[in-house]
Amino acid sequence: MKDFFARQKEELAACIGEACAREAEAVSMVGAMGPELMDRLADFSCRGKMIRGSLVALASALLSGRVLPAALPLGAAMELFQSALLVHDDIMDRDNTRRGIPTIHYRYETEAEAGGVSDSGHLGESLGICAGDVAIFLGFSLVGEAGAMSGHTEKLVRLCSREMNIVGTAQMLDVAWSGGWGSPSADDVIRLYRYKTGRYTFSLPLSAGALIAGGGAEVRTTLEELGELIGIIFQIRDDELGLFGEESELGKPVGSDIAEGKRTLYYLTLRARASERERERIDQLFGHGNGNGDGGVEPEVVAEVRELAERLVVRKSVDTMIYGLAEKCGLLLERLKSEGADAEPWFGYLNQLLDYVQTRRN
Amino acid sequence: MKDFFARQKEELAACIGEACAREAEAVSMVGAMGPELMDRLADFSCRGKMIRGSLVALASALLSGRVLPAALPLGAAMELFQSALLVHDDIMDRDNTRRGIPTIHYRYETEAEAGGVSDSGHLGESLGICAGDVAIFLGFSLVGEAGAMSGHTEKLVRLCSREMNIVGTAQMLDVAWSGGWGSPSADDVIRLYRYKTGRYTFSLPLSAGALIAGGGAEVRTTLEELGELIGIIFQIRDDELGLFGEESELGKPVGSDIAEGKRTLYYLTLRARASERERERIDQLFGHGNGNGDGGVEPEVVAEVRELAERLVVRKSVDTMIYGLAEKCGLLLERLKSEGADAEPWFGYLNQLLDYVQTRRN
Repeated sequence: MKDFFARQKEELAACIGEACAREAEAVSMVGAMGPELMDRLADFSCRGKMIRGSLVALASALLSGRVLPAALPLGAAMELFQSALLVHDDIMDRDNTRRGIPTIHYRYETEAEAGGVSDSGHLGESLGICAGDVAIFLGFSLVGEAGAMSGHTEKLVRLCSREMNIVGTAQMLDVAWSGGWGSPSADDVIRLYRYKTGRYTFSLPLSAGALIAGGGAEVRTTLEELGELIGIIFQIRDDELGLFGEESELGKPVGSDIAEGKRTLYYLTLRARASERERERIDQLFGHGNGNGDGGVEPEVVAEVRELAERLVVRKSVDTMIYGLAEKCGLLLERLKSEGADAEPWFGYLNQLLDYVQTRRN
Repeated sequence: MKDFFARQKEELAACIGEACAREAEAVSMVGAMGPELMDRLADFSCRGKMIRGSLVALASALLSGRVLPAALPLGAAMELFQSALLVHDDIMDRDNTRRGIPTIHYRYETEAEAGGVSDSGHLGESLGICAGDVAIFLGFSLVGEAGAMSGHTEKLVRLCSREMNIVGTAQMLDVAWSGGWGSPSADDVIRLYRYKTGRYTFSLPLSAGALIAGGGAEVRTTLEELGELIGIIFQIRDDELGLFGEESELGKPVGSDIAEGKRTLYYLTLRARASERERERIDQLFGHGNGNGDGGVEPEVVAEVRELAERLVVRKSVDTMIYGLAEKCGLLLERLKSEGADAEPWFGYLNQLLDYVQTRRN
């Protein structure tokens, strides 16, 4: 599976590079800032793992027995959409680093500051908003290209805009809750995992890949349902790693969710099961500037939260939930077989992906 | 012409309302914020003049002798793209009012503030960024719909994403210059007018409308060139009205460009022709918080700038430039005739549009 994703990433990077170079040419007459942005977007996009882009290829092969040529521009589109959302997300989260380099808006900010601009923070954000918009436009041009190759342009455009609408409105909820607006229940949070992580990261690329391979509504629905569940599992494990993971394996500070007071399923379940006194303690521990300066919290805080999660049997019950979800995924994989979407070795990769999201350590 | 635009606006509003209602339904399972946003986007989009959307219909009729059905969703797409850019623009410009109602991000800000959010300004901006993104996605879904009706989906998607890339990167230049980053020349500014105002407001809808009517590369190039020139004239007149217009006719404060120190063609020509002493005075008058609190400047400041513009023959030479551009437009209209894109009454409307951008008083 790793080889497959590595190979896809390489091909996607080349495709993104070409598309950005082509658009750089097209916008060059406006001024130097356009081509420069295209360069930055290409570089930024190629630094991700490109799981979304690769899943398009995987799904196209599941149905047709080979990775279809149109999967390349379509996968590249997924990566540009992802870049767009990350560029905008980094403005919302005020993050200065992403994928090992300065975030797009922060780089503009530092350059403008060096250029003598007084309100460089706001200018950096403004240019970052434009940059994200351009990444969306670039993404749709690649959807158009994939459409031209596969003959499914209308359906592809509609699928992408529908699913992007879903992730866009889900992001609003996430941002509002993180900002302290509204009090989500555990069900609300799982719905967010389903629609923000699941449909966007897994269902959309799988469904899009199946579409270019001529997949009908039935098999695409199965893939979309599977994507939703894989996404929920992925996100819950993500929350868990943030609490119970090892910093050495994670490569990022443990406890950042505690520092931010993020409304994760863990947090909500913990709070729901706590006694009144424990709940007061939880409200002291989560958020409220408990951070240790590098984005995490002090080890004692992590230890106390872990101890509480064990005592209130939160970890175990979340694990039980994951097993239940994984079981449903197994049934959906069986359904895929009966629908003829089981070409090897790609069906094996899909199984491995399901194992991976359940057991990953970073 | 007015009747034509009024009728188009009515039909476009209905089409936008339907599309937003359909998408509201599709995103409703995520949470209430999605459908609510669709409502707000529909309302906001229908408050504009809808020139862009109407020009799609006009161009389709110029070539085919009737307004084509696909012009409706395609025109609606133009209006949603415009809403997206305005929503993001209002964040960049920190504007709280647009089209007579609170701007999208400001409304979220006030609602979040009422909900007890401490950093409501930032949350409002974050939600506004998401809202603009969703408007882009909605726009592309309507491009897909127009494609399904006209059979030109690929070309339409590529045309829209290419032109939106151009306006997106042009906006970056505009934002950078307005923020005090870089010193544009008069040529740079005219290039901005051509690509930001011209191609986006006029060339794109005209070319898109011609495309669904089966127009080839030749006639579409003529329309695009015409659009660029109309846009430059429109923007220069806009600058001029901001300086020489009457507040009672404009409906907005005169002199806001002076208060903001905006790099308009007027400003740059004025500065280029001024003596050293006059230039010092210009630098005192423009920007630097000379505002009078409602977005304009004191009448004495406007009077002094006007006097200077007359004395340095700036107004006259800008007028001469506009006549030259209008002459070129005349030749392009002749070329359109020879290319068969001259069906009446729409060709007459195009002529009237050219007259209007030259002579408008508000």
